[in-house]
Amino acid sequence: MAEATPAPRVQARDLEAFIARACEAVGIPAADAAVIGSLMARADVQGSEGHGIFRLPQYIRRIKAGAVNVKPQIRVERDLPGMALVDGDNAMGHLVMSFATKLAIEKAKTAGAAWVGVHHSNHAGPASLYAAMPMEHDMVGLYLAVGNANHLPAWGGIDMLLSTNPIAVAIPAGEEPPIVLDMATTVAAYGKVKTKAQRGETMPEGWMIDRQGRPLTDPKRADEGFLLPIGGYKGYGLALVIGLLAGTLNGAAMGRDVVDFNKDDHSVTNTGHVIVALNVAMFRPLAEFKRAVDELARDIRGSQRLPGVDAIRLPGEGALKARADRIAKGVPVPAPLRESLDRLAAELGIPPLGQ
Amino acid sequence: MAEATPAPRVQARDLEAFIARACEAVGIPAADAAVIGSLMARADVQGSEGHGIFRLPQYIRRIKAGAVNVKPQIRVERDLPGMALVDGDNAMGHLVMSFATKLAIEKAKTAGAAWVGVHHSNHAGPASLYAAMPMEHDMVGLYLAVGNANHLPAWGGIDMLLSTNPIAVAIPAGEEPPIVLDMATTVAAYGKVKTKAQRGETMPEGWMIDRQGRPLTDPKRADEGFLLPIGGYKGYGLALVIGLLAGTLNGAAMGRDVVDFNKDDHSVTNTGHVIVALNVAMFRPLAEFKRAVDELARDIRGSQRLPGVDAIRLPGEGALKARADRIAKGVPVPAPLRESLDRLAAELGIPPLGQ
Repeated sequence: MAEATPAPRVQARDLEAFIARACEAVGIPAADAAVIGSLMARADVQGSEGHGIFRLPQYIRRIKAGAVNVKPQIRVERDLPGMALVDGDNAMGHLVMSFATKLAIEKAKTAGAAWVGVHHSNHAGPASLYAAMPMEHDMVGLYLAVGNANHLPAWGGIDMLLSTNPIAVAIPAGEEPPIVLDMATTVAAYGKVKTKAQRGETMPEGWMIDRQGRPLTDPKRADEGFLLPIGGYKGYGLALVIGLLAGTLNGAAMGRDVVDFNKDDHSVTNTGHVIVALNVAMFRPLAEFKRAVDELARDIRGSQRLPGVDAIRLPGEGALKARADRIAKGVPVPAPLRESLDRLAAELGIPPLGQ
Repeated sequence: MAEATPAPRVQARDLEAFIARACEAVGIPAADAAVIGSLMARADVQGSEGHGIFRLPQYIRRIKAGAVNVKPQIRVERDLPGMALVDGDNAMGHLVMSFATKLAIEKAKTAGAAWVGVHHSNHAGPASLYAAMPMEHDMVGLYLAVGNANHLPAWGGIDMLLSTNPIAVAIPAGEEPPIVLDMATTVAAYGKVKTKAQRGETMPEGWMIDRQGRPLTDPKRADEGFLLPIGGYKGYGLALVIGLLAGTLNGAAMGRDVVDFNKDDHSVTNTGHVIVALNVAMFRPLAEFKRAVDELARDIRGSQRLPGVDAIRLPGEGALKARADRIAKGVPVPAPLRESLDRLAAELGIPPLGQ
């Protein structure tokens, strides 16, 4: 059931405006609603559909159920020369992470590097949004998070104690595009499984296994199995230590305390994140660094290819391509998504998307 | 050709003493030689054979060829509240990383977190050695490095522009053993390929491919192919960004500048590393953190298992088990290793291992 006709396109500014109106309708102050609209639309523009406006009905549902604080006092709870801890006061994750990332950037201006831990936050969209922000200040950004649903057991286990805990690293270049890695520690993110189910497609072997350890390829049966980590026990280890750094160290949820925010609209998630900003010029002259990144990017892109490979890509190229396309033509909004947003608009008594 | 009889065992203190004598014989001051002996023996004791005394003949060869500085002035080149850059002055990596890790720990005592970059270093042994050091001060350690030989192409490519760039993260627990992840970003480390070749065994599919993209399973043909990254393009992305953080950002070798120290005894490597120390008590009360790590470790270890799985392991358990065995019985020294060390002793005019 692949889509027969291409999905209608909607301009990013219309997504932003719709998201902001919906947020305001449930009590979020206008300035905060605008930040959320801008960041969620940015996710759609860069092709992170699973983290953009698609999530809005769920976010609104959780806000209405009282699981998210719409009038938060986000604050710096601990502040030392090389680190800080941010208490998100259970705000929307986008607000908490904007706050924390600004803080990391400010601190790194004088400290050279700043590690900012976050707790009492919520789902904040794609990891790369925040990792990319320090680049505007010629800094490297590194982001870690505890995912908001456990779909990964320990290696050899079947109890889902871990999430797809993502890592994103964004590195500014000179003339070349920046290098932006944004990856889950599982072979497939759970959002991709949901997309396969929506489209009626099967999953390749290697994405999931069932409780007997057999490959699970029917995405409609995803509840009967679990995701596989990249590199087997290595990906399990990575997911675990990312969770310890972003969750346990910050006093945020990890392991059995993680709330499945896809299934539970009522519980506070206490989501944990980490954002690190590294001030490049404190390590080596900025122009020299950027030249070195450019050279490496060109060496890689120009390197010899395996038979049948059409191009060698660098992390972040897919998002750049999506951005160019969507800024020119708008963001695709497939019919089922449009319907769910129209329902949301009616329910909130706000004008629908694009109006 | 698996070994018919178990390898003779040698006590760790004898390894230490032999390594130190060999280092002194090529001009390394006694205090430095003792540090190198202690760290290399620690690698063997924790089961990281590919990074212990096995490397000694190669290290000595490179020192004699003038590729490593035996009388270095390791120094702090840049020092800011949250970061520092260390110039290793082309010393043995063990000395540089001991220095850098001490610095990170000292800084994190007041800064809460410290990111220390390193350049002009050399191969320093297993990543976990340094990641584990902050734990003695109730800190979390994180280590990244550019590997000392490129065996990994970009995803889809065949030019080996990347190394197996490792990551190690060490997290102190309370009553449970610490969680210590130490992993290369390839499915197999190159040392494992060499071990397979030595033993006359074949490699499983998925470790390496040849220049046509076909599985390569004969480790004697390793030169005709390259390692595969974990999770395909994800592991490629990880290896790339680890190299950018540990190499490019610090002004150390990365990409085509990486010297293959297995094949080249003469060139200076300009190896780059990163060590981060995170002072747990600055994030949350230490006892509370340790209790949370203990609980998570117990939840994971006690979780339900897939059919046929005998135990669920946590990262670092293998090393702990090896350590217990080797402290009690000594480190196995197989005949070919013993022979190469005896040759080295004769060449340097020092008493052989164990005497």
